[in-house]
Amino acid sequence: MKLKDIGEFGFIDRIEPLCKIHNPDVLRGIGDDCAVIGISPELNLLVTTDLLVERVHFLLDWQSAQALGAKALAVNLSDIAACGGTPKDVFVSLAVPDHVEINWLENFYKGMSDLSDRFKVSILGGDTTRSLTDLIINITVTGVSKNGETLLRSGAQSGDIIVVSGYLGDSSAGLELLLNSRDVPESIASSLINAQLSPTPHLRQGRSLAQSNACNAAIDISDGLSSDLGHVCKQSRLGATIFEARLPVSEPLKWLAGHLAIDPLEWVLNGGEDYILLAAIKPDKFGEIRLRAAAEGWDLIEIGVFDSTPGIKFVKASGETLPIIPCGWDHFKSEMPFGQI
Amino acid sequence: MKLKDIGEFGFIDRIEPLCKIHNPDVLRGIGDDCAVIGISPELNLLVTTDLLVERVHFLLDWQSAQALGAKALAVNLSDIAACGGTPKDVFVSLAVPDHVEINWLENFYKGMSDLSDRFKVSILGGDTTRSLTDLIINITVTGVSKNGETLLRSGAQSGDIIVVSGYLGDSSAGLELLLNSRDVPESIASSLINAQLSPTPHLRQGRSLAQSNACNAAIDISDGLSSDLGHVCKQSRLGATIFEARLPVSEPLKWLAGHLAIDPLEWVLNGGEDYILLAAIKPDKFGEIRLRAAAEGWDLIEIGVFDSTPGIKFVKASGETLPIIPCGWDHFKSEMPFGQI
Repeated sequence: MKLKDIGEFGFIDRIEPLCKIHNPDVLRGIGDDCAVIGISPELNLLVTTDLLVERVHFLLDWQSAQALGAKALAVNLSDIAACGGTPKDVFVSLAVPDHVEINWLENFYKGMSDLSDRFKVSILGGDTTRSLTDLIINITVTGVSKNGETLLRSGAQSGDIIVVSGYLGDSSAGLELLLNSRDVPESIASSLINAQLSPTPHLRQGRSLAQSNACNAAIDISDGLSSDLGHVCKQSRLGATIFEARLPVSEPLKWLAGHLAIDPLEWVLNGGEDYILLAAIKPDKFGEIRLRAAAEGWDLIEIGVFDSTPGIKFVKASGETLPIIPCGWDHFKSEMPFGQI
Repeated sequence: MKLKDIGEFGFIDRIEPLCKIHNPDVLRGIGDDCAVIGISPELNLLVTTDLLVERVHFLLDWQSAQALGAKALAVNLSDIAACGGTPKDVFVSLAVPDHVEINWLENFYKGMSDLSDRFKVSILGGDTTRSLTDLIINITVTGVSKNGETLLRSGAQSGDIIVVSGYLGDSSAGLELLLNSRDVPESIASSLINAQLSPTPHLRQGRSLAQSNACNAAIDISDGLSSDLGHVCKQSRLGATIFEARLPVSEPLKWLAGHLAIDPLEWVLNGGEDYILLAAIKPDKFGEIRLRAAAEGWDLIEIGVFDSTPGIKFVKASGETLPIIPCGWDHFKSEMPFGQI
């Protein structure tokens, strides 16, 4: 049996029993955006790691070395954001094939370095070795969060309001444009492709949610809305209802969907790599956190509600309700070497 | 220009200026076995990461999945040992090609799990994704050490005695036997191949050295004696003299060298992956630490002395002194896809 037969999440279910916890300070192991370990009565250590493989996650000619360096770091910072933490230190492992030049690698580090300056994180080393075929990038990021302010996937309560912190689907539409060139105006293309190639981790939003005392759970949208909402439902043992009319769709995405005469919903529901946050907000605190977000200048968009009926219910604009099955991105279940659509 | 033109260490020199330290608690970034970060007045966090690539570092048919899982974890635990630390948590990233079965992966995790039980470390997750060609394994391990007991490469003093904690060269001789089958008795072959495939991290030795107040610097022998001693010399701004007659050579290695009619010195000086410790011991504490090691049942072998004359001087059994140039394993400078000899 191969991984593609059971997918990444089926595999995690199988190996979890082999991952015994000997450290009594571990608050969360496998199954969240970060592992969470108590390091003092006040502070938790967060650790996240992400592996990117050439031809599976990216092609070298899609973007500059600097842009890829920044993205490789950004997707890890997004996991720290999902836990409401402050990122601290970065460890970079590279396996480098012969077709990658020193100059390219220096620019890759320059991209990481610029983003690390912006978010005040330190690159503390790693490992550099050889690859015979594809460029391999593994980044591990540590961060900290206050005990009592660490956001997990498992804390949502029935009645909590589901919010997201930005547009859905732009990144996967951008990937579609990278994979299949289309006759699209430059401003539309650059907006969507930028969402795919240069995501900004929502660290400020995560910190704000963590400090608000209004947020019961959070996750970053990396696999796609349906899949990541499914993770929160599973970990919190809840169902959820989301409303088509409330899903935030950008103007460029609407334009592209219209131009291609397709429904943007596939991108919005199942597209991955948005790297915005999805959170569960206590209903009596919703007004307060909405004002806080507005004052701080970030988007907080209500898209639905957690409930105790199993599954994700999707209320169409027409009023009809359909069950939706989480089917975001799983590299092993895809037939294609890359591409989510 | 390619990485093979400047090697891994030349590359580190180039990227180090791009790795700015924003975290005031960082005590050591790039350039040691672990990064060291203060997390309380008493305690330091240690972080190490290691990337293993199929066909560069291992072949699947060399060993069982369990043995490879254990080794992949052991080499990271060895870095924690070199800093005198106690390992805590493990994060595993895998990129899995189609030729690797679920059953193999479960056994790989079983191998890690068994070693993690032995050393009481916790496997807390990671990332699993797809590879189009080779199996990729990245492991990150965190650990802790007491402030004031953390061993670095940079602390050696002129006059310190150079010790190692086990035999040198067995692992690279074992690799030679894996790469080129030889007519060798089973007991010889299994001893050497076992050193290559199933190294034991010297965690007890590292803790003992750290607690002894006798040790000024340490490193694990992963690249080879000449190369790793060179790292300590460079970081401590010292030279060193080592004595051929004192280098610990196992009986199986002597037998194999005799059988092949070659000098075992190439393996002993430049072979990598021994995963024993090399340490700088204060001369006035040497008697004490030797007794301590004997009482605890581990080997502490004096092989030379640090001095202020640049370079590594090698005193042959004949009495002649030669300079030796660090030339341990650097994947980028090797002509072969794998193999150190």
